[in-house]
Amino acid sequence: MTYAAPLKDMLFVIDELANIANVATLPGFEDATLETAQAVLDEAAKFNGEVLAPLNIEGDKHPSTWHDGVVTTTAGFKDAFRQFGEGGWQGVMHPSEFGGQALPKLIATPCIEMLNSANLSFALCPLLTDGAIEALLTAGSDNLKARYLPKLIEGKWTGTMNLTEPQAGSDLALVRTRAEPQGDGTYKVFGTKIFITYGEHDMAENIVHLVLARTPDAPEGVKGISLFLVPKFMVNEDGSPGARNDVHCVSIEHKLGIKASPTAVLQFGDHGGATGYLIGEENRGLEYMFIMMNAARFAVGVQGIAVSERAYQLAAAYAKERVQSRPVDGSAKQSVAIIHHPDVRRMLMTMRALTEGARALAYVAAAHSDIAHHSDDAATRADHAAIYEYLVPVVKGWSTEMSIDVASLGVQVHGGMGFIEETGAAQHYRDARILTIYEGTTAIQANDLIGRKTVRDGGAAARAVLAQIDATLAALKQHDGAAFDAMHSRLQAGRAALANVVDFVLQNTKSDPNAVFTGSVAYLKLAGIVLSGWQMARAMIAATQKHAADPSFYDAKITTAHFFADHILPQAVALEASIVSAKGNRSVLALDVDQF
Amino acid sequence: MTYAAPLKDMLFVIDELANIANVATLPGFEDATLETAQAVLDEAAKFNGEVLAPLNIEGDKHPSTWHDGVVTTTAGFKDAFRQFGEGGWQGVMHPSEFGGQALPKLIATPCIEMLNSANLSFALCPLLTDGAIEALLTAGSDNLKARYLPKLIEGKWTGTMNLTEPQAGSDLALVRTRAEPQGDGTYKVFGTKIFITYGEHDMAENIVHLVLARTPDAPEGVKGISLFLVPKFMVNEDGSPGARNDVHCVSIEHKLGIKASPTAVLQFGDHGGATGYLIGEENRGLEYMFIMMNAARFAVGVQGIAVSERAYQLAAAYAKERVQSRPVDGSAKQSVAIIHHPDVRRMLMTMRALTEGARALAYVAAAHSDIAHHSDDAATRADHAAIYEYLVPVVKGWSTEMSIDVASLGVQVHGGMGFIEETGAAQHYRDARILTIYEGTTAIQANDLIGRKTVRDGGAAARAVLAQIDATLAALKQHDGAAFDAMHSRLQAGRAALANVVDFVLQNTKSDPNAVFTGSVAYLKLAGIVLSGWQMARAMIAATQKHAADPSFYDAKITTAHFFADHILPQAVALEASIVSAKGNRSVLALDVDQF
Repeated sequence: MTYAAPLKDMLFVIDELANIANVATLPGFEDATLETAQAVLDEAAKFNGEVLAPLNIEGDKHPSTWHDGVVTTTAGFKDAFRQFGEGGWQGVMHPSEFGGQALPKLIATPCIEMLNSANLSFALCPLLTDGAIEALLTAGSDNLKARYLPKLIEGKWTGTMNLTEPQAGSDLALVRTRAEPQGDGTYKVFGTKIFITYGEHDMAENIVHLVLARTPDAPEGVKGISLFLVPKFMVNEDGSPGARNDVHCVSIEHKLGIKASPTAVLQFGDHGGATGYLIGEENRGLEYMFIMMNAARFAVGVQGIAVSERAYQLAAAYAKERVQSRPVDGSAKQSVAIIHHPDVRRMLMTMRALTEGARALAYVAAAHSDIAHHSDDAATRADHAAIYEYLVPVVKGWSTEMSIDVASLGVQVHGGMGFIEETGAAQHYRDARILTIYEGTTAIQANDLIGRKTVRDGGAAARAVLAQIDATLAALKQHDGAAFDAMHSRLQAGRAALANVVDFVLQNTKSDPNAVFTGSVAYLKLAGIVLSGWQMARAMIAATQKHAADPSFYDAKITTAHFFADHILPQAVALEASIVSAKGNRSVLALDVDQF
Repeated sequence: MTYAAPLKDMLFVIDELANIANVATLPGFEDATLETAQAVLDEAAKFNGEVLAPLNIEGDKHPSTWHDGVVTTTAGFKDAFRQFGEGGWQGVMHPSEFGGQALPKLIATPCIEMLNSANLSFALCPLLTDGAIEALLTAGSDNLKARYLPKLIEGKWTGTMNLTEPQAGSDLALVRTRAEPQGDGTYKVFGTKIFITYGEHDMAENIVHLVLARTPDAPEGVKGISLFLVPKFMVNEDGSPGARNDVHCVSIEHKLGIKASPTAVLQFGDHGGATGYLIGEENRGLEYMFIMMNAARFAVGVQGIAVSERAYQLAAAYAKERVQSRPVDGSAKQSVAIIHHPDVRRMLMTMRALTEGARALAYVAAAHSDIAHHSDDAATRADHAAIYEYLVPVVKGWSTEMSIDVASLGVQVHGGMGFIEETGAAQHYRDARILTIYEGTTAIQANDLIGRKTVRDGGAAARAVLAQIDATLAALKQHDGAAFDAMHSRLQAGRAALANVVDFVLQNTKSDPNAVFTGSVAYLKLAGIVLSGWQMARAMIAATQKHAADPSFYDAKITTAHFFADHILPQAVALEASIVSAKGNRSVLALDVDQF
């Protein structure tokens, strides 16, 4: 089973929901029209479908291996990465002055989705490289930019993020890796980093590690962390890779999923110190890392959508093919393909609705990011930045949480065959499981949603979003029929639930933080459901307006939105109840530790 | 990390919720007192904790292997199985005339839970053997019983269930395996069976296959299926294993989880025919198989509880040990164990509440089964049988569905370490994934709940259960405090939701089956949540009454019930909405197949 990119849906969202025509009015994006998007997406669909999708199951069967410090990736990965670079895919959204295509995030996002649907393990390497590029663009010196960016953007070299240490998972205050200045502008870096995605591999000529470390006189905690660039190979004056730097991969992890992606333990400085270069200013490392992480968090959200889409396609294909049992409504005397059975249909519709809703929300967020970065009006930039920032933890947290459920439903649709590894459904269930963990667990996204995204601006961004939902509710009222009625009443209830929870968060975070943070993930999921449902409502309206152009596609969109309204939106009210009505959520924290 | 049986909770449920004192009044169960239960459970805890729990991760790392028809189980399994047999654990609930201990299901159920918590892969072998014993007890001739039951109950031989064929998964009408009478009372069996758990292995002297097959003149469909006993080794007159029978294992599956449990493809009759013996009457095979399956379905529900308990214990231990980040409420300046963080607490409480609720429901169901089989009053037997039958699909479907979520939360509590296989959390996530599939998928349980358990008796059993919930609601009213208030209002709402759905099912199943069956799994989950919540409400009342005897334990029980009320019961209303208010659920079935 290969992968066929859902181009129609992607282009529909780009055009109708994320309004690419508006993005194409921004300075620098004049060429980023729907036609450009279509041309880029067509090429991406071809490359990912033909080259990367067939390697997905290979990577699972034959993971990356480690031998004596050298990591060998799955057969075919190295060549695929070469093609990826040559096709210009690493540079889609990066600046043209360093060799990129400078396309909007709104066009890059479906490309990233396709890449991850085709091969989640492979896609992690470019994903981390994107992060390194962002950090260098933001804070790198001209010299570092000139030396590293073209090779990274060209896809010749790859990037990594080195945060985690054995004693410091999510808590970066505990980082111990140290960087000693050498008096010549360089540093020697010493320490151990774990969970480093593509920390070592054989696909690129060089690896550019971005490393959090402390200088000798740095303050304690997160305010004393700086960011360093530590290349695997030193770079010669002519830009070619030179001597091996003192950073070595001592092992890779044996993981539940994404097995082709090597997760490295890196040792810096065991042989005299790894040469590193300070990025930006000392002690501002966390700030720069957050730039990388915000980009990476959005991309991980897209990974959730990607793996959901692939799991859905596999399950739908199986359900059309597998013949079993007669229909419950007596409409046939013979056994039928299981797609005709109501519960199989419910599972497929759930997978589809969750995936389409999350996709729409992510692409709309991408358009906000484009406006936030490229509008020539400061107030417009600020407004869109605030909404984008509000949406990032939701896109990351919700798209990944739902992807685990979608991948699990994918297994269930296959019945007993789903539990057999050869079928492929189980791989998605295993692969998806990392997504709610890395780049910040769902709880960390939820804390961000509460602290930095809801409380800090007094709920302004949340209320801006709620006002947009109100506009959609008013527009729904202009339409008749069961689908619109269902959507209106469910979205209205969901909107009220979200608004109540935002108020609850604003009123209680300072005075009773535990009452709020025990409901943090529930708030994130509630936001994910209501905001995805809102996008499905907008999709329903657009599909009605465009209906004549492609009746089958638009009918399916309206039906999927209707399903979302009836079967997914109602969960919002249950989530609200478990946050707001639970009176301080005392039951969550009441047990003593020894009662567990 | 080993496993410590939750003996206090098990005995609390046995005593206070399932009322073992009442079971001990039944003829034949006079010795089955709480003291007996305690003694048996103590021994079971010791055996499972010491012998089987340490082998769990071994079985995952070193699965059963196949070579040239021979299956070798994980090192240590064979010796453990010997000890299992010698300890009398296979015979706990089987009749003493064949060597069993004849204890009630209410005492056997916690033993089965412990066995599965300790080692899910190992436990499948005794689980299937129980099924074979049940079928022989129900329908076997005296000769077959005398020849096979003692060895099976002693744990010398093991049993299998052979239903599935490559073309016939859940749909047994398609079974093609044939059995040709030989004129001497025996048959020759020919065919291929797949997904046969412990279909071949090296732990026992003999394997007793129970096989669905068709005789030459059998009617088509499920009415022409008979049940045959096909031993791996023919049995000599003295009861010892003799010549090899013509049934061979041609391969075993490469699975997502329960890897130590060999899942065999069995070939019957490739060398002249496998000798088989008819069990009961011709063409009644499905009926007998349903007896086995009903027992097995209940046991698989218990597997869900078991894996949830183990995942919870592992996660709680990690959360107490792992130090990371300061508390959000500022109550400490240093990093604390993550169990102090609100979202980790929410996850652990969710795991705990779901597990305790499902356990209580399953054990209460076991007591109904005991009364249904052993009361000397026919009306009492019938009443309890009806409730037990109503509960079986709920125990199977709900306990297994929730176990996937619980195991997934167990991974999440571990953060990045959860994705590393060495930690063990990932194994539970993989192992649990089969439970909603085998012995009938959740959809099949839900169809059973609708068709045979709700519609067939006009809702009588469902209403009997609802009346019991009403009694609990009245009792809750006698208590004060936030926990009781929350439980009363949530359970009342849940009870109303369940009652509405039962009415909806009764009114619409005939006239609009698709409207009902698209909501089938939602109905099952709703029933699981409300009935588990009801047991937690009963637990809350009992804990208040017994409080002085063990304040820490009973406080924890009340808090866990309070959490269930605030955080799990609200989902019932969302599920009701997606069934009843969705106006025929047209959106589920509206798409054409080619729109997927």
